[in-house]
Amino acid sequence: MQAQLIALDWGTTSLRAYLLGPAGHVQNMRSLACGIMQLPTTARHIAGQPCIDGFELAFDAACGDWLDANPSIPVIACGMVGSAQGWREAPYRTTPSSLKALSTALQTVRSVRGVDVHIVPGVIQHSTLPNVMRGEETQVLGVMHSQPNLNDCLIGLPGSHSKWVQVQDGCLVHFDTFMTGELYAAACEHTILGRTQQQSGQFDGAAFERGVQVALSPDGQLGPLSTLFSARTLGLTGQLTPTQQPDYVSGLLIGHEVSALSRVVRQRRGDKPLPAIILIGNAQLCQRYQRALRACGFADVSLAEQATEQGLWHLAKAAGLLHHTQTEG
Amino acid sequence: MQAQLIALDWGTTSLRAYLLGPAGHVQNMRSLACGIMQLPTTARHIAGQPCIDGFELAFDAACGDWLDANPSIPVIACGMVGSAQGWREAPYRTTPSSLKALSTALQTVRSVRGVDVHIVPGVIQHSTLPNVMRGEETQVLGVMHSQPNLNDCLIGLPGSHSKWVQVQDGCLVHFDTFMTGELYAAACEHTILGRTQQQSGQFDGAAFERGVQVALSPDGQLGPLSTLFSARTLGLTGQLTPTQQPDYVSGLLIGHEVSALSRVVRQRRGDKPLPAIILIGNAQLCQRYQRALRACGFADVSLAEQATEQGLWHLAKAAGLLHHTQTEG
Repeated sequence: MQAQLIALDWGTTSLRAYLLGPAGHVQNMRSLACGIMQLPTTARHIAGQPCIDGFELAFDAACGDWLDANPSIPVIACGMVGSAQGWREAPYRTTPSSLKALSTALQTVRSVRGVDVHIVPGVIQHSTLPNVMRGEETQVLGVMHSQPNLNDCLIGLPGSHSKWVQVQDGCLVHFDTFMTGELYAAACEHTILGRTQQQSGQFDGAAFERGVQVALSPDGQLGPLSTLFSARTLGLTGQLTPTQQPDYVSGLLIGHEVSALSRVVRQRRGDKPLPAIILIGNAQLCQRYQRALRACGFADVSLAEQATEQGLWHLAKAAGLLHHTQTEG
Repeated sequence: MQAQLIALDWGTTSLRAYLLGPAGHVQNMRSLACGIMQLPTTARHIAGQPCIDGFELAFDAACGDWLDANPSIPVIACGMVGSAQGWREAPYRTTPSSLKALSTALQTVRSVRGVDVHIVPGVIQHSTLPNVMRGEETQVLGVMHSQPNLNDCLIGLPGSHSKWVQVQDGCLVHFDTFMTGELYAAACEHTILGRTQQQSGQFDGAAFERGVQVALSPDGQLGPLSTLFSARTLGLTGQLTPTQQPDYVSGLLIGHEVSALSRVVRQRRGDKPLPAIILIGNAQLCQRYQRALRACGFADVSLAEQATEQGLWHLAKAAGLLHHTQTEG
């Protein structure tokens, strides 16, 4: 089958490149450690010319051969590549955001190969405490187009900065951010908690569960600034081994995240039962969230696949980038 | 006046030495960067002998001349010097803890000078989530003996690991810990928040207050894992300058700490009004907590002075270390 689109998920630390065929089917995928904060620096010839631009070098490393083989294939990219520090800034679009609104706001940068790279804008929510995303909007669009009715769903995107997104009538209408992943790393690597921890390489489900239960218990009411200290004191009193502590802390923080979220969701919804949850992201991390969400009373939690590729495919289609192709999905 | 006690407040990063006269009056004070994690390493002669032991070297640097001038003066020390990594471990005493119980559990190490250093034990609370302190118990005792009736007070000790202590009938009965100070440092130095921050050297009261108000607002219900991200987005949208961001984050975290605390205190007390608060610690940090506590509804907040010196004095007295002196306070 002929390739129809090159889709790039270009974040801070990594660059994933997808070669998509008809209906957005993934024909090939590559992952490079070429995020916008760690671009290549070794000069190379691209399209016959010496090149030292990090974005060009990363782009060429990720899909130069695909472009050679498919010279007129369109290219679309989402993520931090569209930030002020990216290849070309694609200014935030405000909520509510639809596929149509985002697809008409793509920013284009012409590479030295003469290929246009179409960059998806991020989304900003101008609430009292503003909220921003870059990349997640594309994943949410991917889920919206692979699942029929999302009006009563909450879409969760666990990660360094977890996002929780509400969609309504085909629009991304509201979202919240939690810095749980990044604060977990900072707490384990740069506070006293790290001193007694030991990484085991194996997930300790019981330690994780214990952390979740503490977050949801009356003791958890003091919040994560307080309960975190228990990782130390349960260690001091021999109740948590050094290898159990990292997963306990992970359970604590994820437990506090989903517990605060569920409290606010319950308030927003009044008498309505809790919504179904669709998770997007790293499978192992999503499984942790799934456990914590169920402990918190969310009965219907599922995992979405290929959200990024699907989102980029549908954005490219809506933007009219796929008009040369024969078959579309 | 003759000196009657050498009192050491010996923590992880610093060592404070006090020369106390009658009634615990401070005659001299020194602060050295010789905490138990950064002891001196340069060998020196002490009492005519070559010495390389870091504890001995720090002890001699802090008060060798005082000991030369007062050969039979007693010495007492509190803080991490009594931990497993300290000079001599003084095992935790369990709550409830009184002056008497702690004063009869001092551990003694004989220095190369032949001087006994009496080390105050820390306190452990064997609750579901255990809690520990080392040094703060001495400060609490200092306040208990300088203020007549503390039965309806909450004693706060802001710091890297803030403690909130309840005393009853002369006993330290319950305490909670918040890692606010250490998590503040980790968030500012080791997460994305630090990238847009700039230190100004001047306290920005309005930015701090804004952070406190966010923590106490409905937006604050999502908890610190979520509200922290607003330091970034308020910066992105031009609502917080780089120099305002550190004090905003400080207000946010301290606001979340006192708001969680007040929620739990209100629950514990039922209909009773909020207790008076006595703060012990660094004056500038205590002023931040004072502002946040008042915003949270605590009307009576005062600052205690010389809690450590007073606590060490009363412990030494209760332990019978001052029996050679003429006048006691």
